[in-house]
Amino acid sequence: MTFDAVVHVSLRPGIADPQGATIERALPALGFEGVSGVGVGKAISFRVEAADEAAARSLVEDLCHRFLTNPVIEDSSITLQPADVPVA
Amino acid sequence: MTFDAVVHVSLRPGIADPQGATIERALPALGFEGVSGVGVGKAISFRVEAADEAAARSLVEDLCHRFLTNPVIEDSSITLQPADVPVA
Repeated sequence: MTFDAVVHVSLRPGIADPQGATIERALPALGFEGVSGVGVGKAISFRVEAADEAAARSLVEDLCHRFLTNPVIEDSSITLQPADVPVA
Repeated sequence: MTFDAVVHVSLRPGIADPQGATIERALPALGFEGVSGVGVGKAISFRVEAADEAAARSLVEDLCHRFLTNPVIEDSSITLQPADVPVA
């Protein structure tokens, strides 16, 4: 089965986020009010081929921990759904 | 009302994604099989103060088009939900 996976990587609370802080500082000058707590993270999307959803999730979690994120400073969350593409 | 907003920014189809391509090339060497179509985008999260959901969505869309994305090469999608924080 094929699954569409998205891994959201965000900085852990307390880790400096200069990119988010810069966006937040720029907003009032552009006329945007009422926006706070800006954080910039990554969204890594890909397609996974696996026997079932549990296998796909396990592969994506392993990938997250070993390669895509730095667990010292980053949190990650995984979204997985069956790809709506007919299997040939 | 306060809303939690997440703006997902991804490269448009056909735009080169060297970061995603690099991840995809590295995976077999790490023992990960069955992963394809890797794309790396941004996830910008923040909190919006607005009268209602329509006002909040309109503000976030405006912010997207004027500031957060480059519509020539990037697509964006907006996720908005009421923040579960009691208003003081």
